[in-house]
Amino acid sequence: MSNLTAALLSDRHTRVRRALGDGRLDALVVTHVPNIRYLTGFTGSTAIVVLTPREVVFITDGRYVTSVREAVEPMCPGFRLVVVDPTYDATLGRILIDGGWGRIGFESAYVSFGRYQGLASALSGAEGLELVPVSRAVEAERLRKDTSELASFRSAGALLDGVAEGVLAAIRPGLTERQVAADIDFRLKTGGFEGNSFETIVASGPNSALPHARPGVRPLAPGDLVVLDFGGIYDGYCVDLTRTVCVGNPAPEAQRLYEAVAEAQCAALAAARPGIRVSDVDRAARSVLDRRGYGAAFSHATGHGLGLEIHEEPRVGPARADVPGVAPVARDEALEPGIVFTIEPGAYVAGFGGVRIEDDVAVVDGGVELLTNVSRKLLVV
Amino acid sequence: MSNLTAALLSDRHTRVRRALGDGRLDALVVTHVPNIRYLTGFTGSTAIVVLTPREVVFITDGRYVTSVREAVEPMCPGFRLVVVDPTYDATLGRILIDGGWGRIGFESAYVSFGRYQGLASALSGAEGLELVPVSRAVEAERLRKDTSELASFRSAGALLDGVAEGVLAAIRPGLTERQVAADIDFRLKTGGFEGNSFETIVASGPNSALPHARPGVRPLAPGDLVVLDFGGIYDGYCVDLTRTVCVGNPAPEAQRLYEAVAEAQCAALAAARPGIRVSDVDRAARSVLDRRGYGAAFSHATGHGLGLEIHEEPRVGPARADVPGVAPVARDEALEPGIVFTIEPGAYVAGFGGVRIEDDVAVVDGGVELLTNVSRKLLVV
Repeated sequence: MSNLTAALLSDRHTRVRRALGDGRLDALVVTHVPNIRYLTGFTGSTAIVVLTPREVVFITDGRYVTSVREAVEPMCPGFRLVVVDPTYDATLGRILIDGGWGRIGFESAYVSFGRYQGLASALSGAEGLELVPVSRAVEAERLRKDTSELASFRSAGALLDGVAEGVLAAIRPGLTERQVAADIDFRLKTGGFEGNSFETIVASGPNSALPHARPGVRPLAPGDLVVLDFGGIYDGYCVDLTRTVCVGNPAPEAQRLYEAVAEAQCAALAAARPGIRVSDVDRAARSVLDRRGYGAAFSHATGHGLGLEIHEEPRVGPARADVPGVAPVARDEALEPGIVFTIEPGAYVAGFGGVRIEDDVAVVDGGVELLTNVSRKLLVV
Repeated sequence: MSNLTAALLSDRHTRVRRALGDGRLDALVVTHVPNIRYLTGFTGSTAIVVLTPREVVFITDGRYVTSVREAVEPMCPGFRLVVVDPTYDATLGRILIDGGWGRIGFESAYVSFGRYQGLASALSGAEGLELVPVSRAVEAERLRKDTSELASFRSAGALLDGVAEGVLAAIRPGLTERQVAADIDFRLKTGGFEGNSFETIVASGPNSALPHARPGVRPLAPGDLVVLDFGGIYDGYCVDLTRTVCVGNPAPEAQRLYEAVAEAQCAALAAARPGIRVSDVDRAARSVLDRRGYGAAFSHATGHGLGLEIHEEPRVGPARADVPGVAPVARDEALEPGIVFTIEPGAYVAGFGGVRIEDDVAVVDGGVELLTNVSRKLLVV
């Protein structure tokens, strides 16, 4: 299924090695598994990579040796397999000492303080060896998706549209939130996805006013707004979609809420294109909801990046902490072709209900490409 | 559903505070979410707790304020709610400086090096304040489950038995691994569980020889051994069960493999009781497989602890690194009443197939109580 090639991996290595050079690093220890997958195509759950100017040293354990020899080694340039003996960190320590390197970067966001201490102590006898905390060495490159990744996203988005159509056709009053969630997950897994990209949300009636509600035993009842938020993993890539439906004809308040959120999503979609900052995309959605009186009801960011992780860069939110309850974005990226993210404004009225509408887009020249595209009309079930 | 009471929470606080005293700590910063749930009953995904001799300072964000005020504050002794402003770590830094404490413990296994650096820098101006890495302060207490936890486990085990019976009755040749996995997950979610406790494994034919295979598009075919490994979360507690079935009548080799693993599981069940070390439970299973010629085919530990996490202490494996391919246990615990763990020996023959049989037990006076108890005979489908 994957469209990954040796040439694409080589290009990823070149870009990350440039960052190594900028930091005057002799090697980079990569422990965050999505970063390892990005650099090698490895689909397992446990490994360590040491990226050097010439090699990709790959440490894994007995569970994965066969599959790595068959699927990773033939494609990954500069690959050298090392099998764990007896533990990951002991093996890593030996490789770092034997490598004769000086400045060795490690991913400070993913290495625990305890693990750092253990590693530093194992290396304390090695002359001239220095552990250097680094951040975003691989993530900065993952921000712009390459051709293989965009191909995976297009397939994933089309599959998710199909699942969503089935879900929306099957939803009925009287089913509990959990029954609807179980149906969604069944459709994701039999609809071509490797699994859920996150825990499915089905929030009905007053629960729909809680953006992170968990599906419970409440049955869908007449008058309910029902928020359905779900996604799958395809080729390792995460897609994410939200629709809000109404059980029976919507009350005027529900209709107003829905129209405000739908217009906010349109405004953000229209704003997004290369050169525009993520905070401007957020503002496009937020100003619609402000104008319609739901500014305070929009209590989260407009979206988040997608990739090998369900939440990755960029965070699409306000630039400064001037929106109560919504944390500002850490870095106010300007959009570039290849950036993939969600656009998911929402509005939540405590005790009454909420609406959220979410689609996934890829930035292309002049605008965005919709990766998900199922109907966004308010569906009455 | 939960049987948690203020008295049980108070007892948990007392036991963890004793560890604080032993480490001469004035406060403990708890960031690991299962540890926060253990200390407070909080069921959300994000919070920080600062446990002091008198208080449980609870930091969370706007998403959770309502549910915390309704469900956590009324039950948790010494509770003080602080709402995030503007970020978690900024709020934590302020609380630590205002607290006037000296030695402040943090969970070194769960705080990244980068986060530690940020916190240390924010606190650098505070006279006399010292950040002290600690490990297992809460985990050591979570090892022995209390009455509320055991009640949750009994309900969870009975529910999982029911799901397993439905799964085993529904499995048919021709279904793909992914279709069977989707059916299992649907039954878990409609069978009373809050969700999966881990990603369901359905491994058929040669795939069953890979202990961590992911469900793929392979259809179940005559002669296949099929390993089904799945579990759910109930009241926050994770249970875990594996059955191996055969498609059509088993070949003699499959029958031999199955009998060896079934006997190994019985031997481990018979060995487990208070005072016995986990390595002895492991040895009981391993020596059966050794004797039957499958010693090298048993490539993982005999079991793992269960609780608010799917893998927790104790790891039930060999004491020393004398079994090729199986990492030794970090601490060779003696079993005590209240410890809950899996017993799941397996044997895997590359290219042919594998067998694993797994049940969950709670240590009680004189032996173990079976939490899961569905039939362990080799089922022919």
